[in-house]
Order: sequence, then structure tokens, then C-alpha cells
Amino acid sequence: MEKFELHILGCGSALPTTRHFATSQVVNLREKLFMIDCGEGAQMQLRRSRLKFSRLNHIFISHLHGDHCFGLLGLISTFGLLGRTAELHIHSPKGLEELLAPMLGYFCKTLTYNVVFHEFETKEPMLIYEDRSVKISTIPLQHRIPCCGFLFEEQPLPNHIIREMIDFYQVPVYELNRIKNGADFVTAEGEVIPNHRLTRPSDPPRKYAYCSDTIYRKEIISQIQGVNLLFHEATFAQADLARAKETYHTTAMQAAQIALSANVERLVIGHFSARYEDEQLLLEEASAIFPQTVLAKENLCLPVGQTNC
Amino acid sequence: MEKFELHILGCGSALPTTRHFATSQVVNLREKLFMIDCGEGAQMQLRRSRLKFSRLNHIFISHLHGDHCFGLLGLISTFGLLGRTAELHIHSPKGLEELLAPMLGYFCKTLTYNVVFHEFETKEPMLIYEDRSVKISTIPLQHRIPCCGFLFEEQPLPNHIIREMIDFYQVPVYELNRIKNGADFVTAEGEVIPNHRLTRPSDPPRKYAYCSDTIYRKEIISQIQGVNLLFHEATFAQADLARAKETYHTTAMQAAQIALSANVERLVIGHFSARYEDEQLLLEEASAIFPQTVLAKENLCLPVGQTNC
Repeated sequence: MEKFELHILGCGSALPTTRHFATSQVVNLREKLFMIDCGEGAQMQLRRSRLKFSRLNHIFISHLHGDHCFGLLGLISTFGLLGRTAELHIHSPKGLEELLAPMLGYFCKTLTYNVVFHEFETKEPMLIYEDRSVKISTIPLQHRIPCCGFLFEEQPLPNHIIREMIDFYQVPVYELNRIKNGADFVTAEGEVIPNHRLTRPSDPPRKYAYCSDTIYRKEIISQIQGVNLLFHEATFAQADLARAKETYHTTAMQAAQIALSANVERLVIGHFSARYEDEQLLLEEASAIFPQTVLAKENLCLPVGQTNC
Repeated sequence: MEKFELHILGCGSALPTTRHFATSQVVNLREKLFMIDCGEGAQMQLRRSRLKFSRLNHIFISHLHGDHCFGLLGLISTFGLLGRTAELHIHSPKGLEELLAPMLGYFCKTLTYNVVFHEFETKEPMLIYEDRSVKISTIPLQHRIPCCGFLFEEQPLPNHIIREMIDFYQVPVYELNRIKNGADFVTAEGEVIPNHRLTRPSDPPRKYAYCSDTIYRKEIISQIQGVNLLFHEATFAQADLARAKETYHTTAMQAAQIALSANVERLVIGHFSARYEDEQLLLEEASAIFPQTVLAKENLCLPVGQTNC
């Protein structure tokens, strides 16, 4: 199966701890890398991940809080020192380009490549990126400032050819792509062979959803229904529910409730408050509701859609 | 002896590696903390050092390259989240305040304390900070942009009282401070007891010099003469001397030559280029000229003026 992996670079929240970096992740889809959020230290963690810097062309910023974007300047600067030439695209709620401009202009004035900023609205789900392999849409969240999560959906894969049937009907090679993509085959005698006799369906497209930062928000459930992997913030334990509401964050139990209602395959929780010396409590609270929960941690790599790792 | 220590938070150069953070250090002088440079990740490393954030009131930035100041925003932001109220003073070559202003204004608009910027000229040595314990002066360096090192000089300590002599002359308690500071004592009979009979000199003031980034620059030798500890950048090995010149950096051998000429007690080299997988070569090259050399590394703590650690 084609590679579709999530790398956790950092899963702490605003206050740094000795255990966690600020938020950053990388999705690796068939060796194309997509960064989600870029907290301070993201470039060091990216280096540690052994992922190829040159494979990263798109960065998605959920919202303009420092712990989700203070790593951008260092990353952009380093890419320049490495002689990058490919454009780097940064997708975010509006305002980021203007904020970064003075420092980019001063510290990165000799950049060998262009940084291209793209702004998205945060009220409605929006398709913000698409290529042959993946579609990426925003997931409107509710935080203290405009904020979106991101839904990564693999493009549908072509059907698998049934070799024996292809041989039997003597299908010429040049017809194969059309047939993989669902066309029927017409024999020299004019007989129509329906596609379903020539192919079997490929695996269903895999999906990854990233939801951080947000207050408990049931409205996202329909959009993330059935995803293979859900990252949901779980800043607080249930005992700190009041604090979660006040700061527009989620508890581990609430994250698990979302996962359960959305019938996802697997949940990974993160964005841990610095107050928890050990996140085991958060894992226990979430697992009680949704057993297929794992704790995010730095340098963790999770497959999207293969739960046996 | 009163505490005077150097903590290395990061000693890499511009490109991040899995081994080094960008440049940052903290000088701990009698539990007052002074940060020198603040590369990305400095706040995480400060947390790791277990030094108390609240003891840090002054940050000195050598020059406006990203690997020496990209950690400021995160640090300032975190201090705010922690409810800091004391002013934070940032000393740097001119331009920093203006560069940071837009991001500070946006990301740190609810700061509970003031950040006060101080600019220094980089051409001549200048006293930029002084209190009861320490004097801090700039050391003009030569880099691609205006850049200064910093000289930390302990204030002279009062003389030690010779208890037996004080008793013998029945010196009243209220005279002791004056005597510690060098005054003679006049007995009730009018006899003048010279200070040197009542006290012995305290230890000479200790000194730490920080020199990074700079091309090999003999002009600094007189200013750092005899310091107890010298941090000097040693970005390159001797084989890369041409590259060092071109980029206005120093080789390990050149750093050792400076240490030798300045007759310092101990040299610590850092700001290592990412090209060296292992800095042992740099240590060997420096030690051949100046044996009292150590390699900087993250989380290393060195006393200033006690070489037996």
C-alpha cells in the first residue's frame, strides 16, 4: 500500500516543557510532505525525523497563535541556507504574511526561493489543496481566534485489473488505463464487457483529520466521519473542564467522544497542557470512551489506515 | 565563592542539526541570570537547564542573524503566559525592536510586563550594563553585519576582615563595612591602623568573555586579556580556513590562538558548523595550541574561574 503516515514533531501546547515541543506535524503521502503547524523547534524536529526537507512544499497553519507558527522563520531561513529553489507555499488564516514580512525581509533577504502565502476563510469547510494523490480541506474549529483543522483525503485509487479476464478478452494494453478508471471494454465483435467483470475495486481512499486548537465542537463530526486517523487536541483532563471551556480547548474525554461519534478508526490525542507531568491520565480518560486511542509524542510515526503497527 | 557560571543552551550555527540548538547561553552570577543570544529553542533549553525564568531580566544579542535571535518571540511570549511582571531588557545592535514590533504587537498583545529595548553601537567597546555584582561591556567583533561580543566582569569584592586584628584593636561593628572597602581605622587613642593590617585582599574579580560571531580578530586580545573563561566561536576546522574567511567566521586553531595570546585561563569553543558530524577534530586543533580548551555542548555548565570542575 502507498505510504500515508503522520509524523509528530511536537505535541505540547503554549508553554514549553522538557518533554514536549510546540505543535508541528508532517503528513507523508507517497513521499510528498505536508507540514501542519510550525511551532518553535519544528525545523530541529524535522531534521530529527530524517524526512527530506526538499519533499516539503506546503505548510498549513491552523491559527495565528505563536505556539503554532513561531518556527516558520527558522524553517524558511534554513531552507534558504540549503539553497532551496522550489516555491514554499504557506496556507493560513489571513494576516500571517503581513506579520512575517518585516522579519522575512530582513533575515531572509537572500532567499534562493519564493515563499507564497495563501489565505483561507475559517467559517466554512474549503478545499484548499488538491493534486493527483490528495485533497486537503479546512475543518472549521472554534478557538479564541479564527482557526481551522485540516482533512487529508487520499484521491480514489484506480481499480485493480483482473489479469485473467484481461487475457481472456484479449484487451489491448492501451485500453488498460481507461479500464482501471472504470470504463467498460468493447470487444472486436462489439460485445460490451462491463467494467466490474474486468476489475475489482481498489482500497477505499484513506483519510486523516487534524483538529487543533478547539473547544469541544460536535459540528465537526459529520466532516470527519469514518476517517482512518483523527488527531484531536486534548489539552486538559476532565477535572479541568472549566479551564478547557474558558480557554476554548478540549478535554481528553471530549476528544474521545468526538472520535466515537465520528466512528473513526483510531484517535491520537495531543496539545497537552504543561500542567500534566505525565499524560497517562489523559490516555486513560480518552480510552475509557474510545479504546483505539494513542498519546501523541515527539518523533512518533503513525500510519494512516493500518492499525496493526 | 559566589556563583559565577556559564550555561550553554545551544552551540550550533545557522543550520540546525540533530545534535545542536542554535546559539544561546546563560550567565548565572550570584543567581542573577543574563542570557546571551537567543536562537530558536532557547526557551526549551532554558527550561531544561532548571534555571529560574524569573531570575532573567537581561538578554544580550550579539548581532541580528536569525540563529542568534529567532528564539526571542517564543521566550517573550512564554514569560507572558507565566504572568511575569518585571521588565525584560533586551540589549542589541540597532534595529531589533523595529523588526520584532509587528509580531510582538500581534502575538504578545496581552503581555503582563514590559519589554525594554536598548541599542548599542558596535564599533567601540561600551559599558552597557552595571550593577553591584557585574559590569558588562561590548567587545567589537567583525562579522558580515554589525556584531559585538560581551565581557562580563565581576565587581571587585570587598577585602576580607582579619578577625584577630579586629578583636585586638576592638574595632566597633559599625566600622567594619568601611574597613572592608579599604578604609584605615583610627583607635580611640588616635592611632591610625592601616587597612592592610586589618584585612587581606579578596579574590580578584572574575571575568567571562563571549566572542561570536567573528572573523579572526586580534584586536580583541587586549580587551579580553586574562579572562577566566573565554567562549570563542570556532565554526570551522583549519582545512576550511578559506570558508571561514569568506563567511567571517573563525577556525578552532584561530580561536585557540586568541586564547593563548590573551593569556586566558580556559577556552570553550562553539558555534560549530553543521558540516562536522563530530567536533573532536575542532577540539584537537584548538588543544594543540591552547590545551585548556573544552568543547561547548548543550546543557554544559562551566564555572567561571574554577578550573577544577
